[in-house]
Amino acid sequence: MKPSIPKGTRDFGPAEVRKRNYIFQVMKDVFVKYGFQPIETPVMENLSTLTGKYGEEGDKLLFKVLNNGDFLSKANAEALAEKNSSKLISSISKRGLRYDLTVPFARFVVMNQQSISFPFKRYQIQPVWRADRPQKGRYQEFYQCDVDVVGSGSLMYEAELVQIYDEVFAKLGVKSIIKVNNRKVLEGIAEVTGILDRFMDMTIAIDKLDKVGIIGVEEEMIKRGIPQKAIDTIKEVLEIKNLDALDNIINESSIGKKGIEELRSFHKYLDQKPTANAVEFDITLARGLNYYTGCIFEVVADKRAYPDLVMGSIGGGGRYDDLTGVFGLKNVSGVGVSFGAARVYDVMNELSLFPDSTSSGIKVLFVAMDEKAHEFAFSCLNKMRAKNLASDLYPEPAKMKKQMKYANDINCPYVVIIGETELKTGKLVLKNMETGNQESLKIEEIISKLDKSRI
Amino acid sequence: MKPSIPKGTRDFGPAEVRKRNYIFQVMKDVFVKYGFQPIETPVMENLSTLTGKYGEEGDKLLFKVLNNGDFLSKANAEALAEKNSSKLISSISKRGLRYDLTVPFARFVVMNQQSISFPFKRYQIQPVWRADRPQKGRYQEFYQCDVDVVGSGSLMYEAELVQIYDEVFAKLGVKSIIKVNNRKVLEGIAEVTGILDRFMDMTIAIDKLDKVGIIGVEEEMIKRGIPQKAIDTIKEVLEIKNLDALDNIINESSIGKKGIEELRSFHKYLDQKPTANAVEFDITLARGLNYYTGCIFEVVADKRAYPDLVMGSIGGGGRYDDLTGVFGLKNVSGVGVSFGAARVYDVMNELSLFPDSTSSGIKVLFVAMDEKAHEFAFSCLNKMRAKNLASDLYPEPAKMKKQMKYANDINCPYVVIIGETELKTGKLVLKNMETGNQESLKIEEIISKLDKSRI
Repeated sequence: MKPSIPKGTRDFGPAEVRKRNYIFQVMKDVFVKYGFQPIETPVMENLSTLTGKYGEEGDKLLFKVLNNGDFLSKANAEALAEKNSSKLISSISKRGLRYDLTVPFARFVVMNQQSISFPFKRYQIQPVWRADRPQKGRYQEFYQCDVDVVGSGSLMYEAELVQIYDEVFAKLGVKSIIKVNNRKVLEGIAEVTGILDRFMDMTIAIDKLDKVGIIGVEEEMIKRGIPQKAIDTIKEVLEIKNLDALDNIINESSIGKKGIEELRSFHKYLDQKPTANAVEFDITLARGLNYYTGCIFEVVADKRAYPDLVMGSIGGGGRYDDLTGVFGLKNVSGVGVSFGAARVYDVMNELSLFPDSTSSGIKVLFVAMDEKAHEFAFSCLNKMRAKNLASDLYPEPAKMKKQMKYANDINCPYVVIIGETELKTGKLVLKNMETGNQESLKIEEIISKLDKSRI
Repeated sequence: MKPSIPKGTRDFGPAEVRKRNYIFQVMKDVFVKYGFQPIETPVMENLSTLTGKYGEEGDKLLFKVLNNGDFLSKANAEALAEKNSSKLISSISKRGLRYDLTVPFARFVVMNQQSISFPFKRYQIQPVWRADRPQKGRYQEFYQCDVDVVGSGSLMYEAELVQIYDEVFAKLGVKSIIKVNNRKVLEGIAEVTGILDRFMDMTIAIDKLDKVGIIGVEEEMIKRGIPQKAIDTIKEVLEIKNLDALDNIINESSIGKKGIEELRSFHKYLDQKPTANAVEFDITLARGLNYYTGCIFEVVADKRAYPDLVMGSIGGGGRYDDLTGVFGLKNVSGVGVSFGAARVYDVMNELSLFPDSTSSGIKVLFVAMDEKAHEFAFSCLNKMRAKNLASDLYPEPAKMKKQMKYANDINCPYVVIIGETELKTGKLVLKNMETGNQESLKIEEIISKLDKSRI
């Protein structure tokens, strides 16, 4: 049989895992510095936890795990007779694969509310599964990376999360723009234009600005029954670039004023320290998800720095007021952001931003020309590893060409060649695989040279 | 609704994740140093890849994922009519959850054989799933941690893997015994005692020595039809502690001699460098799995160091000659070892071997007594984080007691208290939460003090 893997899933080889882990490590180091703690939840959740949380479409995309043993013995007889798949499911499957990290986090908070100290700052980096039709760049198994704090309404956390975005992308070398808005401000606009009952319609239309332009947004609003007078005001408002100008327009809306206050309070914290990336107030940022209630964020790679890059947002998030209500715990306010791990990976790959250290596992391969040299090489290898230098020895004194090809294939930056002459003199040939330069050195000299050259 | 998680699964809170990641990080650092590279395979594999690889019992323990959409439309009508669950499965489920890391690794090697450079040294740390009945210490979702090299028969790798065991357990502080034997030696014993046709019976019996003692092993061998004369010789052989004595007995068996040669060759590499833990030849080590063909290993915590510890093996592995044959790629020899991650965790917990750094996420919590102090504290926090010190600020100037309780709850080793006086003098109160000691210092002094105290 010829083996294969399921459609929409991937194997990750050494170079990919190293690169991905590099990104995750940078993120984790920043999260920990800001007081966020790791949690991990099981891959399988009860279907009762997952079902109904992602809309009807989401329910269809859940992977369901078949009950073990004689599952048909408890199957819904009616559904079986009718051959009704969706009706049958609950009687033959009680578990499903995690669809995102938000619902499991909410479930975790509710289950552990007695032992958790609030505010609870957690990060979580784990794969999720969705039965979407696989296509280029869309997989059924992919990583999510979420950072949230629940149990406090302090705007300090909004500032911290923006600082985290800023610091992570600065460390990764991805020049970014962090866009900030506030849902209450958008609600204020709806209020002063008299279309509070059309608030969702307005945000859905505005959310499409990037894709369809201002004319498209206007068409969308007309289609959704928003009066022309309101549309004209909204169009003017969407041109506004600063809070003071906005304040003048929406100060008759108490919710709108609250939104502006929140943004100012957020800036009071944020402005204490300069950021490496641009943080821009963007009144046109709406974020589709209607559970956001306060500040909202979105990160994009900076087009001014990368004019040729075609890439959607690489992060997003915001304040929500009711994460855990669905599981019976009311009034838990939280704020969180996600990193688009796969997109960050793609951006970094395209811009060659990964450090050299991710391209190879070892620094040196020893190449021995005969049995005696091989034995000696193993003792050199022990010395090198004792100094924590990642290194290896080809397992047998094979032909030079074969061993050098291996060094090349595994992307090894240095090779140490040991033959009869080297054994006699104790001076080994150190070859730089990139430049081709060679020098003859004692093993101790080689170790100290490579030790110093580490990043 | 009151949320819950599936039986046999677990949530991992911050302290547990930190501890587990500490173990994994120590392991990964060692693996990388020895030239092993990370791979990751998907959680879902095709059932055709998994089925039949773990015996009949294993097939039952596979978690099967229901096909998406109208799965009944393609269901086996006969099986449905008969209500035959096992017959129905293949028509409604084509994917399952990974059961171990060995079969996915074999599948990976075969699928990527054109792009892999052999010898291929890989490590893999990922969870696996088994529908075992959950009980104390046995879960349906748990991590495995495998290190293998395939594509070479060199005994150098056996030595490296023992060095890896030695170094990992030395770094973790777990005093261990690494037991070594060779399946060919056991086969030699079967040959010279004339029971080569009963080889499996013999190894199964010997494998039980730890649990049932030598009398139990003898009974088992009698039950399995091994003649008394052979049993008497085997019992004698099981007393042997060194290779030379063994050599005399089995040198009439060519396979047995080969086994001794392998052990000597392995020692030629291993003995070049002293090990921190005991490496002991143990003729009674058999390892149940019949795919091992050469050297075999098992690691146990050293009873001499921990007389009260009750714990099975914390690692095991060996040489196999046909990992990938089942997927159509013949003659790929390999050798690998596993770490019993959960047991290592338990041993370290029981012996309090985790470093202090795993007990808390942050080093300092700032506690502010009023709004002005809070604002100032946030600027101090920025300075501290700029020096890469993990730190945090309680989100509001709440009551002292509440904030101190929070610091306690999250296990924070230091607190910096800022009130009116501290704001005036610029000297902040640094409190060591373990000793209760307090001192008044400038923020810069606090930073430099804590920076130095880092491990």
